[in-house]
Amino acid sequence: MDVRQKEASLMNGSAIMQWLAGSLPQKTGRFSLTATRHVRHAITLCHALLSERGEASGANLAREVVEAYVSLNEEEVEAFFDSLIHLFSPDPDIVTRIAETYRAEPSQSNLLALQHAVEPPRQELFRRINMAPNGTAILVEMRRRVLRGLKQHPQWQGIDGDLEHLLRSWFNRGFLRLQRIDWNTSALILEKLTKYEAVHEIQGWRDLRRRLDADRRCYAYFHPALPDEPVIFIEIALARGLSAHVQPLLDPDSPVFDPGRADHAIFYSITNCQEGLRGISFGNFLIKQVAQDLSLEFPKLKRFATLSPAPGFRRWLEAQASDPANGRISELLAELAMPNWHRNQEVADKLREPLTRYCAYYFLHAKSGQEPLDPVARFHLSNGARLERINWLGDTSETGMARSAGFMVNYVYKLAKVEDNHEAYVKEGKIAVSSHVEALAKEKPG
Amino acid sequence: MDVRQKEASLMNGSAIMQWLAGSLPQKTGRFSLTATRHVRHAITLCHALLSERGEASGANLAREVVEAYVSLNEEEVEAFFDSLIHLFSPDPDIVTRIAETYRAEPSQSNLLALQHAVEPPRQELFRRINMAPNGTAILVEMRRRVLRGLKQHPQWQGIDGDLEHLLRSWFNRGFLRLQRIDWNTSALILEKLTKYEAVHEIQGWRDLRRRLDADRRCYAYFHPALPDEPVIFIEIALARGLSAHVQPLLDPDSPVFDPGRADHAIFYSITNCQEGLRGISFGNFLIKQVAQDLSLEFPKLKRFATLSPAPGFRRWLEAQASDPANGRISELLAELAMPNWHRNQEVADKLREPLTRYCAYYFLHAKSGQEPLDPVARFHLSNGARLERINWLGDTSETGMARSAGFMVNYVYKLAKVEDNHEAYVKEGKIAVSSHVEALAKEKPG
Amino acid sequence: MDVRQKEASLMNGSAIMQWLAGSLPQKTGRFSLTATRHVRHAITLCHALLSERGEASGANLAREVVEAYVSLNEEEVEAFFDSLIHLFSPDPDIVTRIAETYRAEPSQSNLLALQHAVEPPRQELFRRINMAPNGTAILVEMRRRVLRGLKQHPQWQGIDGDLEHLLRSWFNRGFLRLQRIDWNTSALILEKLTKYEAVHEIQGWRDLRRRLDADRRCYAYFHPALPDEPVIFIEIALARGLSAHVQPLLDPDSPVFDPGRADHAIFYSITNCQEGLRGISFGNFLIKQVAQDLSLEFPKLKRFATLSPAPGFRRWLEAQASDPANGRISELLAELAMPNWHRNQEVADKLREPLTRYCAYYFLHAKSGQEPLDPVARFHLSNGARLERINWLGDTSETGMARSAGFMVNYVYKLAKVEDNHEAYVKEGKIAVSSHVEALAKEKPG
Amino acid sequence: MDVRQKEASLMNGSAIMQWLAGSLPQKTGRFSLTATRHVRHAITLCHALLSERGEASGANLAREVVEAYVSLNEEEVEAFFDSLIHLFSPDPDIVTRIAETYRAEPSQSNLLALQHAVEPPRQELFRRINMAPNGTAILVEMRRRVLRGLKQHPQWQGIDGDLEHLLRSWFNRGFLRLQRIDWNTSALILEKLTKYEAVHEIQGWRDLRRRLDADRRCYAYFHPALPDEPVIFIEIALARGLSAHVQPLLDPDSPVFDPGRADHAIFYSITNCQEGLRGISFGNFLIKQVAQDLSLEFPKLKRFATLSPAPGFRRWLEAQASDPANGRISELLAELAMPNWHRNQEVADKLREPLTRYCAYYFLHAKSGQEPLDPVARFHLSNGARLERINWLGDTSETGMARSAGFMVNYVYKLAKVEDNHEAYVKEGKIAVSSHVEALAKEKPG
Repeated sequence: MDVRQKEASLMNGSAIMQWLAGSLPQKTGRFSLTATRHVRHAITLCHALLSERGEASGANLAREVVEAYVSLNEEEVEAFFDSLIHLFSPDPDIVTRIAETYRAEPSQSNLLALQHAVEPPRQELFRRINMAPNGTAILVEMRRRVLRGLKQHPQWQGIDGDLEHLLRSWFNRGFLRLQRIDWNTSALILEKLTKYEAVHEIQGWRDLRRRLDADRRCYAYFHPALPDEPVIFIEIALARGLSAHVQPLLDPDSPVFDPGRADHAIFYSITNCQEGLRGISFGNFLIKQVAQDLSLEFPKLKRFATLSPAPGFRRWLEAQASDPANGRISELLAELAMPNWHRNQEVADKLREPLTRYCAYYFLHAKSGQEPLDPVARFHLSNGARLERINWLGDTSETGMARSAGFMVNYVYKLAKVEDNHEAYVKEGKIAVSSHVEALAKEKPG
Repeated sequence: MDVRQKEASLMNGSAIMQWLAGSLPQKTGRFSLTATRHVRHAITLCHALLSERGEASGANLAREVVEAYVSLNEEEVEAFFDSLIHLFSPDPDIVTRIAETYRAEPSQSNLLALQHAVEPPRQELFRRINMAPNGTAILVEMRRRVLRGLKQHPQWQGIDGDLEHLLRSWFNRGFLRLQRIDWNTSALILEKLTKYEAVHEIQGWRDLRRRLDADRRCYAYFHPALPDEPVIFIEIALARGLSAHVQPLLDPDSPVFDPGRADHAIFYSITNCQEGLRGISFGNFLIKQVAQDLSLEFPKLKRFATLSPAPGFRRWLEAQASDPANGRISELLAELAMPNWHRNQEVADKLREPLTRYCAYYFLHAKSGQEPLDPVARFHLSNGARLERINWLGDTSETGMARSAGFMVNYVYKLAKVEDNHEAYVKEGKIAVSSHVEALAKEKPG
Repeated sequence: MDVRQKEASLMNGSAIMQWLAGSLPQKTGRFSLTATRHVRHAITLCHALLSERGEASGANLAREVVEAYVSLNEEEVEAFFDSLIHLFSPDPDIVTRIAETYRAEPSQSNLLALQHAVEPPRQELFRRINMAPNGTAILVEMRRRVLRGLKQHPQWQGIDGDLEHLLRSWFNRGFLRLQRIDWNTSALILEKLTKYEAVHEIQGWRDLRRRLDADRRCYAYFHPALPDEPVIFIEIALARGLSAHVQPLLDPDSPVFDPGRADHAIFYSITNCQEGLRGISFGNFLIKQVAQDLSLEFPKLKRFATLSPAPGFRRWLEAQASDPANGRISELLAELAMPNWHRNQEVADKLREPLTRYCAYYFLHAKSGQEPLDPVARFHLSNGARLERINWLGDTSETGMARSAGFMVNYVYKLAKVEDNHEAYVKEGKIAVSSHVEALAKEKPG
Repeated sequence: MDVRQKEASLMNGSAIMQWLAGSLPQKTGRFSLTATRHVRHAITLCHALLSERGEASGANLAREVVEAYVSLNEEEVEAFFDSLIHLFSPDPDIVTRIAETYRAEPSQSNLLALQHAVEPPRQELFRRINMAPNGTAILVEMRRRVLRGLKQHPQWQGIDGDLEHLLRSWFNRGFLRLQRIDWNTSALILEKLTKYEAVHEIQGWRDLRRRLDADRRCYAYFHPALPDEPVIFIEIALARGLSAHVQPLLDPDSPVFDPGRADHAIFYSITNCQEGLRGISFGNFLIKQVAQDLSLEFPKLKRFATLSPAPGFRRWLEAQASDPANGRISELLAELAMPNWHRNQEVADKLREPLTRYCAYYFLHAKSGQEPLDPVARFHLSNGARLERINWLGDTSETGMARSAGFMVNYVYKLAKVEDNHEAYVKEGKIAVSSHVEALAKEKPG
């Protein structure tokens, strides 16, 4: 019984109490007796849930653990997480001993024993918490808090590792369901889209309604255990031609286009909703499945492309300016610093060509390791998309001007090419790019 | 990127081909070229699915792997499983090296590294196969085949370990849904109940219909990824008093009882449907959840109890007879060997008392390790139930007479007691038993 | 308030009691006091439901009426129906007076007044009964009983008229839902198909399952108020070529055909399920909607056709034989009277040509009024189908031989032609027929 | 075949064209040729739908009629309605002849014949239009337009009568489904509530959300043929005590009350959504069903009551003032005319007692025929509710002050009493009223 083994490596109840008694108050000095009692209570329930009693009483005890956990305050949660590390990690001596056995004879059964030994009892604890009503949601939320505190509490890395392992397994693409979001969707879910949308903020119900009209599509992945919580969602405009500007797409008063006449599907926003699922990627699958589904619904669609920001461009440009050789850039930055420069036709005309070249150069040559510096570019290129076009004044919103100097980029998803593009990108760091953008990037205009 | 690391420990493509070329034909002698080609094709696809291309093309490649796998014949599947062991296991040298690092410094991050190192690439392969349509069903089926061949192919233990790890995580109680099964259920699912029912075989649609009538209940757990496949199901009779005999319950012509008058819920059959989920237990949860639900629906219910066989009793009795001291048992066995002895009132009267005592003794004193020898007793006692009553001629079917000498047993589930009972059973090997049965078992009648 | 008006024309409560007291016992002589009490109770509730109290208490009183009605025995139901005629019909004097007013001035408002006057209070009673749980089902069942007794109780015609008027309105095609029936359908509904199928009896679950396999389709209309009761259903075989014989279609062991390769959809059975909806036709709509849906699902389908019996043929043939001029027919009938003649190749060969000619003649020239004598022919021809082919030994079942002398007929539904065919049939009595059948029918073979 | 009969009484096609040619252009003078063509086209399709072709082609022709109708402009619709009267009414000569037959012998079969004769062919036309996709919605909409034009076009009364007859039958309570409306409801339906709510206007999504929070309930009736269109809906506040003031209930920032502690359910708004269903009452059923359901969900609820306006009070008061004997009223009205008088405590104190007495008098003695003058009082008293309390300054909104002089009234629904109350109200004009209000109304304060 692997569960029993794991318990063997757990401290027994009185040892736990001792540790809690000894370490909690010292830890923070001002930690109150009440707080200590709360954390002790939660940890005692965790211990019971992992023990024989937990096996028998099943979901009831799991529910109590959840109730105890959600009633902890900020400070108590920190002590709770610390306790999870101290009390529910594997015993290094046992791990080492079994690793020795494996080294001596690396059989499948010794490997299995080692796998069991290295798995922290925390993982089984989390699996049992998952039996509580709403358990999955609680664990996703728990990882969100762990991630937020990770920098300050590097020891929580172990909790993060356990939760990520479980959540990655549970949120396997095979368990997710693609759902269309439209005006028939519940207000509960629509309200969440508004809350989560990070790329182009939704300005109330009227804006949202326009984004769900006949010439738009919105799809989300849902997990069966979180029926009212989108995991990720994507917004699409059905259009004629490759959209270059985002403001017309976002205008709630824009006329509704006949979707039957569309030849392009423009992915203009993709949002991961659950901070607690960070590092578990869904966007790649979502874009491809949606592209497949749309091409069945609208056989006239010729191209699937994004309209994306270049969020790191302006910061990069500023970094370049610090090099005295780049005097030209400093001049450009001075112009960019003027409010509303893009409404001044003369200035805009002057800046257009050099900035566009710098932007192309930025995408193809500015690197973070072997990958492009731009995070959005990393995402789409790694998915196998092709950098197709750089659009001058594609996003003139405050954010768009501040981060991307107004540029919007089209990445094209050609399903027949994504495998090759992805492989070349991962293995050789090769970026799929149109000849036009490649030409633009040939030399820095400086 | 842990995925990248894992690939590093994979052989590269040409090494795979070499291994396949070298080992497949030799393995069986008569292994055909076609068979070799089939296995190679499947393994090559698995390799691709785990590589960069797999990341990009997602579900499509997973579907191809599934198609290749399901078209393999028996012999080819064996070679395929062998290849999974040889080609997708972790590299012992890497594991050992990282175990050393952990030993030197048992930090959370070194622990995480070791966890990654000991996880076979097979696990990630299986996670990706799960993205195929029907992927979960295929993996459950794959484990069924692995389990069936495990005795002959002990090396498959590694595959079993990986699949069990994943399936145990995915079939977490928190993801299962309790569904009532009745005459409104689809014929597709009802047909499966008939196929799976192992305790008291269902004799066609008329029998099934009686079992779903107003005085009966049937519940099953379903997993969202297998919407038409029950994982486990339970059959219940609502009755007045504690049922002692199973034949009246199984009689399709028995009158339908008014369930509002019932004071007992009798669990008379519980069936695990998926061989590929062996070792992952659901019955414990199912019984308790159903008991809770029924007590809400029928507030007059006073007791939840099983009507269960004693499947190991007669074999145990025979084993006892080999001891010359047990002459009395030999006599009893001679009587039992007579066909239809139970219809002879005189014989039955004579056998009743000594056999009942032996049966009580068997439950309380015949052991396998520290646990009772009887497998059904192990299940219910370990769930925290109490052995309540032993019923003479409770099951006079051929099977019932052959295995249990006609005895049926009632185990009572008292929700307020199951935790204590379970803990005493697990920790001290203590069996919860009624005073009546305890008295019966006091001394062997011999 | 038209409801108030209607009540005015109702007798008041004491008059009702008087009538019931006077007429019930006399009616049957042996009518018991208990029976009288039951009918009085039911009628009193009906009266209350139609009165002011009925307006206020709504569904509760309707439920009581239903309970009182369903607990009446056969004899009491008859007295209840008689009472509905005597007590809930319009007052002829009022009708006549309002008809006069209309004659004097045929305005829209006088027309409305007349419409209200001629509507029996029974109709409003039935509308209110419909508010009871299961009310619609009760009314359908009530009409079934009225229809069954109509010959013996011609006065019930008024009840039939009211119920037919309501049910025709409520079961308007616009409210019916087409549902596919397959192995995913509930056992409850599948069991009903088995019970209702009248054309080719379903021999248990195995037979039913074959009829729902991949190369078959079954569709039914359902009404929202009767979610578990099919109104009508149709069975279809997807086939290559125009099926001539029904036995292969009904064979539960026949191999399953790949439906993607089918070029014909063969409607081989259509069943009206609700006797209480007699005279309200759904078959015409069902066939056409199913043909449209199938042609979308299987674009390769070239033709939609029935495989139908000729149920009146043999009786007609026998009637012809009574004419001494038709000596030849008598000879044929003598051969047909021999058991299993169709298994005797020689006899069959001899009969084939003359019987086929008689059958063609029967379809085109044997009339009931202006329409064909054959009831199945009337149905399909009136729907706009074309009589395409007559199949020798198409149905060799006992029933098929007895009624149709073994013939099966194909009627083809060409959607582009059904309007023209129907119009020509209704206006001119013209039968759409293939040239081949027309040629066969040219002259009686006698 | 009654359908055939009806067609006989229709003009034939060329007569129709003649009538249309002769009457349409003359009718309006400026009626364009295009308009004439449109109406002709629509009427021709109606004629075809009612003819043999309509029987055969079913839903397709119905769809064409709907398309033709919805594309008519305002003026064309009028001509279309006129044509429905002229061309699809029964023939008075035939009606009169059959009425004579009935007079001579008032048998059930002659009654049936007369019923058929007086039914306009329009009714069958509407029944067939109902087969079109969305047909029911179109007919509801058509009646809305007929009702709006009825004053100006009294001849449309016949169309109204036909549509009302059909819709009353189709929207029988037995076919309606009660649905809870909450934040899980689709935005599509929620948006419609906002649009339809007539009593207390919904000020955007935030207001709506508060009305659907944990201490509120909202229920609607839906018809299966209009799944996204509420027929009627009701809003309820769960409260402690009998609410006297509506502003706290409508405040989006009001704290959410624990519904488990509520002892009163306050119905504070009920809205009929479909103008085209005018005169077909649902509110009575809805209130009673909701009261039953709530008392099951919240067994602690002691009382079900409304919080309702007195919309005719101020107008009545003004009418009284014209009588010189009522000088006191004129003074009161002068005070009421001052803006925001209710914020002036002194004025309010002075007005309170006399106005409250007038209000009580208004409810008990101001009549329209035998019924109370106040329309809301008529509705609730006719449903069997009791006038319980008159609340001073219950609604201080602009509308509330203007119509009801700020009064709100509680009507109490005691389910055990509604039948008696309703009967006494309908038969004797007796108003169920609390002794307190009765005392207030004893004498006019003037």
